[in-house]
Amino acid sequence: MIDLHYAPTPNGWKISILLEELGLPYSVVPIDIRAGEQFRPEFLAISPNNRIPAIVDRAPADRGEPISVFETGAILIYLAEKTGRFLPVDVRGRSRVLQWVMWQMGGLGPMLGQHGHFRLYAPEKIPYAIDRYQREATRLYGVLDALLGKTGRFVAGDEYTIADMACFPWTMTHKAQGFTLEDYPNVKRWYAEVRERPQVQAGLAVGKFVKEPFSDEAERIMFGASRVVAE
Amino acid sequence: MIDLHYAPTPNGWKISILLEELGLPYSVVPIDIRAGEQFRPEFLAISPNNRIPAIVDRAPADRGEPISVFETGAILIYLAEKTGRFLPVDVRGRSRVLQWVMWQMGGLGPMLGQHGHFRLYAPEKIPYAIDRYQREATRLYGVLDALLGKTGRFVAGDEYTIADMACFPWTMTHKAQGFTLEDYPNVKRWYAEVRERPQVQAGLAVGKFVKEPFSDEAERIMFGASRVVAE
Repeated sequence: MIDLHYAPTPNGWKISILLEELGLPYSVVPIDIRAGEQFRPEFLAISPNNRIPAIVDRAPADRGEPISVFETGAILIYLAEKTGRFLPVDVRGRSRVLQWVMWQMGGLGPMLGQHGHFRLYAPEKIPYAIDRYQREATRLYGVLDALLGKTGRFVAGDEYTIADMACFPWTMTHKAQGFTLEDYPNVKRWYAEVRERPQVQAGLAVGKFVKEPFSDEAERIMFGASRVVAE
Repeated sequence: MIDLHYAPTPNGWKISILLEELGLPYSVVPIDIRAGEQFRPEFLAISPNNRIPAIVDRAPADRGEPISVFETGAILIYLAEKTGRFLPVDVRGRSRVLQWVMWQMGGLGPMLGQHGHFRLYAPEKIPYAIDRYQREATRLYGVLDALLGKTGRFVAGDEYTIADMACFPWTMTHKAQGFTLEDYPNVKRWYAEVRERPQVQAGLAVGKFVKEPFSDEAERIMFGASRVVAE
């Protein structure tokens, strides 16, 4: 059994989607990030960066104590290696997938996150910052579109992998962030194919218990106040 | 033989340090990011995100065509798996290392990068943005300090791994970004131990050919102008 410490955000969805794709039994532990639950000591022990999602694998491969894993990129790899799925074992295919997982972790995720903050949530509208991240987000959508034009189907080639599961949830923010997939025809095609997978739909349906994860207050708690401790 | 497409930046140093630690033969291909060389088509073929560093392994394990790898997190894993060093194979040790590599890739690197931009390079001083990233950088240094207080020696425990090589080069920016390691005694101890390794010194010495990788003009080219194409 896997415990999924979770809130319905792009990073949370990566893991709920993968768990649905794998058909692994898991139980959801809701973390109300609006209330600062991610700062509780018992969550910190699992996720030392105070961010969701995190997992606890109660039946690890080595049959030892439960293993906790934080950072979505590490969770994707952990579960893929545990099950032998969605991450090729040959040196080339494997590296291709990991390269695009890393691109999402270091680029697409953080930069769309900053763009979302300055465009949608920051209390002041700061043209310089909005413009900076809009240009970077545009560049990243361009990189993804060029890639998908080349691979023809999925992020890392013909096979659907954890690289797709890493990137897809972040591209779901495109409308809110003022982008249209009409500008990125290869992304549009890929997005439609991934989105209609029943496992993806099931993953996105997890945790409707939190309706507005990105409210101003949540953003303040999540990013602004590192000393907030939930009562 | 490994080709290292490189400029002396925190991300470049990660890989020059690992190559020195591994003692693998490699040749440096300087990429002048100030001149926009990262936008040349021949570099794009290796690094589809137009960023340094990237490697080309001319003698891959499967004895096939050369393999190119971009994104530092993926390069670290690729070279660690190629050589069987600096990344444990047991499920727990391995995941611990990958979690902190991901933390660096998705948090420490991008957020120190944004802090450096707004504090040091942006043409306007924007208090809101400087404050946002200073708070986040402070939080991340705190997470690293707490971790190193717990592990006692290296990022992922007693062993020096690619997680240290991922984090160390970014902490080298601390002085320029207005931080003092006196505030983070565990980071200070770790930093001194990592820094005095001869292989780390050798990695940092690679590519003194570019003296000011983070000039205003370089920043504009690297981040601001996605349509710049080098002649």
